[in-house]
Amino acid sequence: MLKQIQGGVCAAKGFTANGVHCGIRKNKTKRDLALIYSEVPASAAAVYTQNLVKGAPLTVTKNNIADGKAQAVICNSGNANTCNANGMEIAEQTCELIAKELGMKATDVVVASTGVIGQPLDITPIANGIPELVKGLGDHSNLACEGIMTTDTRKKEIAFECTVDGKTCRVGGIAKGSGMIHPNMATMLVFVTTDCAISSEMLAKALSADVKDSFNMISVDGDTSTNDMVSVLANGMAGNKEITSEGDDFDAFCAALNAATTYLCREIAGDGEGATKLLECKVCGGKDEQNAKIVAKSVICSSLFKAAMFGADANWGRVLCAIGYSGADVDVNKVGVAFRSVKGTVVVCENGAGVPFSEEKAKEILLEKEIEVLITLGDGEAKATAWGCDLTYDYVKINGDYRT
Amino acid sequence: MLKQIQGGVCAAKGFTANGVHCGIRKNKTKRDLALIYSEVPASAAAVYTQNLVKGAPLTVTKNNIADGKAQAVICNSGNANTCNANGMEIAEQTCELIAKELGMKATDVVVASTGVIGQPLDITPIANGIPELVKGLGDHSNLACEGIMTTDTRKKEIAFECTVDGKTCRVGGIAKGSGMIHPNMATMLVFVTTDCAISSEMLAKALSADVKDSFNMISVDGDTSTNDMVSVLANGMAGNKEITSEGDDFDAFCAALNAATTYLCREIAGDGEGATKLLECKVCGGKDEQNAKIVAKSVICSSLFKAAMFGADANWGRVLCAIGYSGADVDVNKVGVAFRSVKGTVVVCENGAGVPFSEEKAKEILLEKEIEVLITLGDGEAKATAWGCDLTYDYVKINGDYRT
Repeated sequence: MLKQIQGGVCAAKGFTANGVHCGIRKNKTKRDLALIYSEVPASAAAVYTQNLVKGAPLTVTKNNIADGKAQAVICNSGNANTCNANGMEIAEQTCELIAKELGMKATDVVVASTGVIGQPLDITPIANGIPELVKGLGDHSNLACEGIMTTDTRKKEIAFECTVDGKTCRVGGIAKGSGMIHPNMATMLVFVTTDCAISSEMLAKALSADVKDSFNMISVDGDTSTNDMVSVLANGMAGNKEITSEGDDFDAFCAALNAATTYLCREIAGDGEGATKLLECKVCGGKDEQNAKIVAKSVICSSLFKAAMFGADANWGRVLCAIGYSGADVDVNKVGVAFRSVKGTVVVCENGAGVPFSEEKAKEILLEKEIEVLITLGDGEAKATAWGCDLTYDYVKINGDYRT
Repeated sequence: MLKQIQGGVCAAKGFTANGVHCGIRKNKTKRDLALIYSEVPASAAAVYTQNLVKGAPLTVTKNNIADGKAQAVICNSGNANTCNANGMEIAEQTCELIAKELGMKATDVVVASTGVIGQPLDITPIANGIPELVKGLGDHSNLACEGIMTTDTRKKEIAFECTVDGKTCRVGGIAKGSGMIHPNMATMLVFVTTDCAISSEMLAKALSADVKDSFNMISVDGDTSTNDMVSVLANGMAGNKEITSEGDDFDAFCAALNAATTYLCREIAGDGEGATKLLECKVCGGKDEQNAKIVAKSVICSSLFKAAMFGADANWGRVLCAIGYSGADVDVNKVGVAFRSVKGTVVVCENGAGVPFSEEKAKEILLEKEIEVLITLGDGEAKATAWGCDLTYDYVKINGDYRT
């Protein structure tokens, strides 16, 4: 009953959005301030980076949604507002300014920032941009999406329709990931909206479970950002009976949420800094889910494997090597590896040793833009999937460039 | 009393070495078989990769030196002899062939391989090359060093003299690290020789302690090879009273060993695949050594930090970010960061926040070939050092190239 639809974060009833250039960035063609607004207060949940160094906006957001409620999301790009002496103050002022303009409570704002760490963020351009930002609110998920982009090469937005309690609900999201114009962190920000009626407790539960299989299974470069955040606002305007416990309705909502987050995961990984390929590592036959996940992430994080994929080289020894040092409890003598793309599948390793294969066929498969690495562990029934991208000259270029 | 001397692995009394081209590699100008020989049986100790996927030669070596004795080291480059159906057989045959030629026991041979994983290794070129290899044994540490090189751009050899029990002892080593002509793993192999008389138990103790601060603190790309090995042969020909317990003599030997291994660490890191710079991360003020080490390694392993160093960009936010996600128990609000090279020192962060600094001066410092990243944690007295290199276009090029 899940159906992909248009509209991004504005697909769900009662949500509008906008994005403007306010002047944090010098480039006037680049929007640097984004807003998502719900016409009624919504249940809210968020998950944050595990980095001990946390952006000031994350702390403010955490305080603001401690009551499980929010009504707006504001996010600037161009400056991470992290490791600044007055970061908290700036983030709080941002909430106050946008709340005043919208006529709502400052403590119902989710605030986020993405950009260079350790550079003071001036409130002036934000204050100046807010009137225009609010005035232009409408069915503009795409503009909000632009406002949070950095070195992203494409917009990442998605929406799905599902049925909960006989009512049609929508779940939509936008994301940014994997770079900046003055790059600093492969910061990931994801904002999801839904008109499904769900308590903040169940929303938090759904989100926490979801990220374990979605955003926590992506890696572009192994560097965990200081500003990562995924937030969901659920305003209940679909009219379903509020979800307050597990059951069919909760499952239907989680399935729609997961469809949206999985789509955004693939988008973020495939648009990783400098990436030419999306890599999807699918592990099966694991002793348990934890082991399968460790293997999938280790392979997707290996610089040597990522560089081999850039070169379309079926260098499966690097896959085995990454499994071997992953720390997972696996019997390496049972491991099988295959590569797959739209051009076909090639088996390269069985029982931990190489098998003869056509290098020509392997090359043809690996020259595609989306590559699956299929790993069988032979230890049980558990599965896991992780997403990443190849390591390219452009990754080095983007991140070796001087900040100024 | 520690003095750097010439001679590499042949500096210690009774050790000779050689390296030849036997035909594992197609390029006839590249030596691919190396030998180190002690005229008398020696105490032996080794440490091996922690990767679950282990090269067959490592298993054979482990068996051979289980009795704490060895007399020769043989190593081929061009093929890792790993994930091959008959790898054990080939490694054992290699030991038998070289032992027969040298007139010694096959179980006293340390055998190692470095190269592509998962390709069958033919014994024929090795068998054919062994007579010439043995015939040419002499003061040829440099030729043995060439024989184990892969994409290394320079030879890595060192020797030190120390005094133990009133006698002059020598500790010398050769190393390869960080690449291959047909690259597969940043395999690291280190062979150390000494004429110091020391029991195999104390030799093992000295080596285990040493690698924790030396080779385990290097990272080129975060990929733990399947074939890493460090071995030490101590033949006792310096004539000192055998070291059989801790004390001044043991400390003197350990100091010489550490001088040699630290030198080789810097050489391996600075010659990492594609590297233009050696990065040395020095942490002080840690709560304990473990925390200091975790911080040092996290920074040195960060792809974003490594790319910034390639670009000579004083992007200290990435250092803080890497400390934050390291998992170490640190108070990020106390962290200080400075960059140093022969051109001077620039402080960029104090108490977890940026301080004004001259970008021009920072650039001048970071354009040098050897960069120190000085981190103070403010939590205690513990220190740690880790070594790495910058992430460059050439790293991607070397590892994205097709195997054939």
